Amino acid sequence: MNVNFINPFLDSLIHVISTMASMELSSGKLSIKKDNDAKGDVSGLISLIGPQTKGSLSISFEQKLILEIMQNMLGENPGMINEEIIDLVGEITNMVAGGAKNILADEGYEFEMATPTVVSGQTHTIRHKVKGQKIIMPFDSHFGKAFIEMCFED
Amino acid sequence: MNVNFINPFLDSLIHVISTMASMELSSGKLSIKKDNDAKGDVSGLISLIGPQTKGSLSISFEQKLILEIMQNMLGENPGMINEEIIDLVGEITNMVAGGAKNILADEGYEFEMATPTVVSGQTHTIRHKVKGQKIIMPFDSHFGKAFIEMCFED
Repeated sequence: MNVNFINPFLDSLIHVISTMASMELSSGKLSIKKDNDAKGDVSGLISLIGPQTKGSLSISFEQKLILEIMQNMLGENPGMINEEIIDLVGEITNMVAGGAKNILADEGYEFEMATPTVVSGQTHTIRHKVKGQKIIMPFDSHFGKAFIEMCFED
Repeated sequence: MNVNFINPFLDSLIHVISTMASMELSSGKLSIKKDNDAKGDVSGLISLIGPQTKGSLSISFEQKLILEIMQNMLGENPGMINEEIIDLVGEITNMVAGGAKNILADEGYEFEMATPTVVSGQTHTIRHKVKGQKIIMPFDSHFGKAFIEMCFED
């Protein structure tokens, strides 16, 4: 996996949550171990296809964090992962991937973004099946954790 | 969503499971209701991007069914959803999408396939976020149920 792909996605998530939800996520230790699958209560998944490579991204949120994000963004907290939370996660995923896509385009890497898919269900596990290294980055905040998992074909 | 996209994926799943696992899946009633989300114990997700449209596909399996599929394909049943089952679901997803891609190409619809992502965790729910109709098709067999959920942008 091209290491140049990593920071645009990490920076884009931090930027989106900061500007849209006025919340600071602090990034933890990047892991490239194969058996560290992303776990979440709700996750947005999106794939990218480019002439040079293709890959996928998932952004997983603990329930308490995404509820607080929705509170900040939309002024309501539904208390559980409902249809509105699922919609929100889809939009956040679109924004994060879109932001990264723009940064990568400036660096010469062109990608088409697919449509996001949201998975919910407490402690589901996500495994990207790709011939390449998988990166997991945990994020922390006052309100809970999030995880980015990403990988691109070698 | 272009209705011509539906049957290639349904036929491809039936074909893959029949030829690779010697198992018959019978298709149920197609649903296009928005709130019928696919539920599974393990699901393969893959996105497709083409010049005319883009969309995503998920294939969700009940645990008992995918264990039986693995028994038939590889001669072993791990008794639970483990790494080998996750790998298998990724491969099945690749084969189903690849088969559909070929049928659609013959019909004049070109797509690039992304890399599959596998989600596990009992009764996770999948929601494809796309501006278009979402199709869910349930499949039944002697050993359990599967679901295809698919959608393409209008």
